[in-house]
Amino acid sequence: MKDVQNQYDERNISLNEVGIKDLVYPIEIKDAEGNWIPTRATISASVGLGPHQKGTHMSRFVEVIQDNDRQVDIRNIRNLLKTMQDHLEAENSFLDLKFDYFVHKTSPVTNNESLINVGVEVQAALLGNDLQFQVTVATPVTTLCPCSKEISDYSAHNQRALVTITADTHKFIPFEKYVEISEQSASSPLYTLLKRPDEKYVTEYAYDHPKFVEDVCREVKQRMDVLPGIRSYSIQVESQESIHNHQAYARVIGHPGEENH
Amino acid sequence: MKDVQNQYDERNISLNEVGIKDLVYPIEIKDAEGNWIPTRATISASVGLGPHQKGTHMSRFVEVIQDNDRQVDIRNIRNLLKTMQDHLEAENSFLDLKFDYFVHKTSPVTNNESLINVGVEVQAALLGNDLQFQVTVATPVTTLCPCSKEISDYSAHNQRALVTITADTHKFIPFEKYVEISEQSASSPLYTLLKRPDEKYVTEYAYDHPKFVEDVCREVKQRMDVLPGIRSYSIQVESQESIHNHQAYARVIGHPGEENH
Amino acid sequence: MKDVQNQYDERNISLNEVGIKDLVYPIEIKDAEGNWIPTRATISASVGLGPHQKGTHMSRFVEVIQDNDRQVDIRNIRNLLKTMQDHLEAENSFLDLKFDYFVHKTSPVTNNESLINVGVEVQAALLGNDLQFQVTVATPVTTLCPCSKEISDYSAHNQRALVTITADTHKFIPFEKYVEISEQSASSPLYTLLKRPDEKYVTEYAYDHPKFVEDVCREVKQRMDVLPGIRSYSIQVESQESIHNHQAYARVIGHPGEENH
Amino acid sequence: MKDVQNQYDERNISLNEVGIKDLVYPIEIKDAEGNWIPTRATISASVGLGPHQKGTHMSRFVEVIQDNDRQVDIRNIRNLLKTMQDHLEAENSFLDLKFDYFVHKTSPVTNNESLINVGVEVQAALLGNDLQFQVTVATPVTTLCPCSKEISDYSAHNQRALVTITADTHKFIPFEKYVEISEQSASSPLYTLLKRPDEKYVTEYAYDHPKFVEDVCREVKQRMDVLPGIRSYSIQVESQESIHNHQAYARVIGHPGEENH
Repeated sequence: MKDVQNQYDERNISLNEVGIKDLVYPIEIKDAEGNWIPTRATISASVGLGPHQKGTHMSRFVEVIQDNDRQVDIRNIRNLLKTMQDHLEAENSFLDLKFDYFVHKTSPVTNNESLINVGVEVQAALLGNDLQFQVTVATPVTTLCPCSKEISDYSAHNQRALVTITADTHKFIPFEKYVEISEQSASSPLYTLLKRPDEKYVTEYAYDHPKFVEDVCREVKQRMDVLPGIRSYSIQVESQESIHNHQAYARVIGHPGEENH
Repeated sequence: MKDVQNQYDERNISLNEVGIKDLVYPIEIKDAEGNWIPTRATISASVGLGPHQKGTHMSRFVEVIQDNDRQVDIRNIRNLLKTMQDHLEAENSFLDLKFDYFVHKTSPVTNNESLINVGVEVQAALLGNDLQFQVTVATPVTTLCPCSKEISDYSAHNQRALVTITADTHKFIPFEKYVEISEQSASSPLYTLLKRPDEKYVTEYAYDHPKFVEDVCREVKQRMDVLPGIRSYSIQVESQESIHNHQAYARVIGHPGEENH
Repeated sequence: MKDVQNQYDERNISLNEVGIKDLVYPIEIKDAEGNWIPTRATISASVGLGPHQKGTHMSRFVEVIQDNDRQVDIRNIRNLLKTMQDHLEAENSFLDLKFDYFVHKTSPVTNNESLINVGVEVQAALLGNDLQFQVTVATPVTTLCPCSKEISDYSAHNQRALVTITADTHKFIPFEKYVEISEQSASSPLYTLLKRPDEKYVTEYAYDHPKFVEDVCREVKQRMDVLPGIRSYSIQVESQESIHNHQAYARVIGHPGEENH
Repeated sequence: MKDVQNQYDERNISLNEVGIKDLVYPIEIKDAEGNWIPTRATISASVGLGPHQKGTHMSRFVEVIQDNDRQVDIRNIRNLLKTMQDHLEAENSFLDLKFDYFVHKTSPVTNNESLINVGVEVQAALLGNDLQFQVTVATPVTTLCPCSKEISDYSAHNQRALVTITADTHKFIPFEKYVEISEQSASSPLYTLLKRPDEKYVTEYAYDHPKFVEDVCREVKQRMDVLPGIRSYSIQVESQESIHNHQAYARVIGHPGEENH
């Protein structure tokens, strides 16, 4: 059978990426402690395409992902990207994994345990021999408005907010670290399971820690700036305003660079 | 050219609905005061299919919608459904329109004007000569937790919530009426534009009107039960809990029936 | 601490459902062969609320789900609903689980193995002692247009389509059964991994089995009508038309009832 | 009342953006011919925040958008961004508008007219006095697989695909231009209204113009490289494979730069 993809392409145009997108697949992620965590990821996988090759062989991406029992060791993602380069005969390879990650939470007074979901995206690229590695962790938190607290005789509007940190790192930093930084910088963490004494605690705690999205953004930045191993980051905080039908948001980027690690 | 859709189908199976779905189209909706309001609707249109007809003629749905300059008079939707029956040679016709609707809001202290978006869905069917007409209006509001207020020394968690009323009605009731009922039953309405004196007002107002989703649901029910023209309804209230990463919700259905109008 | 939820409510209004919604949680589902399959579900859990109880205790739903190591045996869901009734002191309980399910596929010529994701929703209710149980399986397939094939000198437009079967059943029917029925009724199944001989096969197979959404809907109905254990069903087929920017769809409901099992 | 937002912030951290997000609002867009087109946009508006200002005044963004009867002249967006700088006392301002845009289509044989929706995003920034202006247009098209055509005795799999062009431009280029380029580069355009002779035409036309996502991407690039006024662009093509449950995609970026205009 004719290999149409391998035909000579006259147009002399290289493509940055060709591959598959939005493949929903069950995989296992190796966490910071070496355990394989089962999850369901939405996956994009691609390679660069040379100027004279008509197309890539899409089925090979699925083969690479299926190998090794569908286990992805984030700390060792270079190997997976190298396999993609070899299998697809390409100089550059790209992998993007999106999944829910679950973090253990203990309620602040009654010590009830539960899990909370945070959104994670891992974007990795192997350009020749150069590994680029970027992680996004989106942590839900509470914000309580300092202006509302200041001007009102009592109470203050508060709401769920989302802290999204994207970091380009030298090495793998556990997802839990980004969650911890996000929660410490907010008016309060969220919990999946709270009994009444816990609810009293978080209500008063948030009122004692009023924060604009601007405040949360600045505090996350302060914590990211002293975290070893970060090349650059983007921080976005979105507050699902309880008094509006739109979000308030703040965003800052930073480049702590090479000196920190 | 052969009309495949008109072929005789041996299987003797009628279908409840065949048509088009998720057509995104610019239309104008005639509002309660007779004005044509431009909007962008997501449209499904269908008819019943007889037991021996192989298929329907999908392009005719688009033709019907385009007629009359894409204007849809909700009060007169029977005519549009009748046109669909005629054009598609069917006994039953169905039309589903989803769109954002914008309601005028005046801030409570400084009287600043703005618009707020509410989600509307109109589902209408003409079964032979019998018109069925159902409206859904999803209004964003604030809920403030009575338990959190009661047990905490100060403050209370609050958040954006969504009140969704679906009503099967004898006649057209302006969308604004459902919005009004939803807002009156909540801890506070939302506003798109609030200055500081307004923000103080809504913060304190919500604290003075603590409501569980259960409370909001019951209050909406009380108001729906005395609204003329309602055959039946479903009320759902979802609170985007500021202390959790999941929603609290309550739901009730009712059948005030024929006696109210 | 005061138990606000347990206060007497004067309004004398029962609510059909109160509970939590959109809880994203890692659970394990027991499949047809008795294996525990890890997945990530979006969960709603609720109970009915009596006319004089102010509110329900939302945290108990999380406790119930966490019990038994977050394992949900679909065949034994009555037990879980009973536990919810007991824990929440309610007469009626409701559980809704949405998750991706993965089905093994073997490519038709080269016999390459892979997994394909189908969308599953399980909705169960225990009303007093009466169990209601409903399953929805959404299977992606190919449809190839019989009209386009008939009128064109060559080729025919084809596209991805989604067959969604919702069934109210007397007993648990493996999800794979709904997938099999959907695929048999379409122009072709989909595959995650196809090599060139497979691609030739599925291209020609689809051309040899042209189907309108109407045809797919009728064939699924024929297969559901002879499947033992079905009380009633709804079948919807949506085709993401490759020549339009909207969907074609067909829908039929049926009540094979008690006589089939 | 105390102006908390105006307080002195000790942390000495500037923020790139603070503002509002996901405001759903009815606005009018001035099109290429000077007509005001009503639409419903999802809007983000923000400004940079200095190192010692605690917060921005979120309500002013809504005021700016409401001014001038909510009309946005894309060709004159600099004025709107300047107003935001002035109103918010900021050096940088940002505006992001997302909306459905509707393009007139005439069916290829019977000349039936209809509209098709394309997704548009306008992202503009005024950094001091320097305007940055970026447009994204996502056009739905058909792709028909050259490999499937080549290896099969008859037919070929085809499907809806999405061509997304993002361009940083020196001047406003009508959205219709991006749609035209996308459609010319695909196996076939899509249409909202096709009669049978049209359906025959597009079926055969697509078979006569088989294209991988790689081909579409390269052809769009060739057309973008000779379009005057483009500073840089990103082109992404996603094909909703009719034989898979995932997408095939290709992406290329380019910098035709200053010499073309």
